[in-house]
Amino acid sequence: MIRRKRGTLFVISAPSGTGKTTIIKRLLSTFDDIYFSVSYTTRPKRNGEIEGVDYVFVDEKTFKDMVEADEFLEYAVVYGNYYGTPKRPVLERIERGIDVVLDIDTAGAMSVKEKVEDTVLVFIFPPSIDTLVERLRLRGTESEEVMRKRISQAMVEIERSNIYDYWVLNDSIDRAFEELKSIVIAERCRRKRFELWGI
Amino acid sequence: MIRRKRGTLFVISAPSGTGKTTIIKRLLSTFDDIYFSVSYTTRPKRNGEIEGVDYVFVDEKTFKDMVEADEFLEYAVVYGNYYGTPKRPVLERIERGIDVVLDIDTAGAMSVKEKVEDTVLVFIFPPSIDTLVERLRLRGTESEEVMRKRISQAMVEIERSNIYDYWVLNDSIDRAFEELKSIVIAERCRRKRFELWGI
Repeated sequence: MIRRKRGTLFVISAPSGTGKTTIIKRLLSTFDDIYFSVSYTTRPKRNGEIEGVDYVFVDEKTFKDMVEADEFLEYAVVYGNYYGTPKRPVLERIERGIDVVLDIDTAGAMSVKEKVEDTVLVFIFPPSIDTLVERLRLRGTESEEVMRKRISQAMVEIERSNIYDYWVLNDSIDRAFEELKSIVIAERCRRKRFELWGI
Repeated sequence: MIRRKRGTLFVISAPSGTGKTTIIKRLLSTFDDIYFSVSYTTRPKRNGEIEGVDYVFVDEKTFKDMVEADEFLEYAVVYGNYYGTPKRPVLERIERGIDVVLDIDTAGAMSVKEKVEDTVLVFIFPPSIDTLVERLRLRGTESEEVMRKRISQAMVEIERSNIYDYWVLNDSIDRAFEELKSIVIAERCRRKRFELWGI
């Protein structure tokens, strides 16, 4: 009767300290048919991080060669380290009908949206600015200056939230997860992703 | 942090025999904050139908006066009887932030979409044309001619499904309900329905 044409690319962004990672993990454990795209980075591996799971860790030469060969959907330099989304694994899966999730910042989201048709952008908000500041403080052994930088970066991200398709407020992890899950299911039902078939 | 600006109008259509009524009832019993708009009609009340629940039953003079006074969002004549969606109860609720569901046909859906900004159109498909024909046959004590009319009307509805925002395939009532529920939750999360607030 009807069938899906392609997979969908979901980009999920949030200011740091919003609880995004927890929500995405829950999403991936709920849907076994969603592919999570692991980013490449040149920053050193931290304690507990797993190669190929948290990041693909490469040296700067390798990263720059990949940039030259147009192998990234988007990439950026943050505090002197490169981060990038590999293009081929993402586009191939979408062609094969598999949904893909990217966990990237607002600048990356903007450039992916331009390149991949019908990308779905989801922005997760903290319950309030106060909660966000509180969470960042609890998290960090960082200096007051780094803290201030992080907070102002969070404000920049929030300002860019108006290019996103969906807004999710994380004042309850269960509700935020339910909303993200619903966005995935609903986007799969959008008419433009289907064709009539066999009639 | 963020807050919703208005309610959303959901229009749900399907060829008859698709199971739409069952799915909508389940939706309304799940969300106690959705208002179901009851249509006006001039057709006689059938056995078991409840005034104000199934329809508001009025005479033709009353209906035509309401048409004159522009009190319908959409109306139509089907087999000599009038059917219409009252305008005020719908628009007032949306203004007050309440979501509204309409159960109307594709022609009605098209005219509502033109009048109410950001209306969401959901089309429910039967598993196959064969199943649809089967269900219509099982249902009816009707003549072969009426049957043929119903089937050709169903095909017209399916052709118009390409103006809809979402397509739901009812090959499993549980899954179709889950999809419709997700569409409602996801649409509530669309950026255009929010504003930043208190920051």
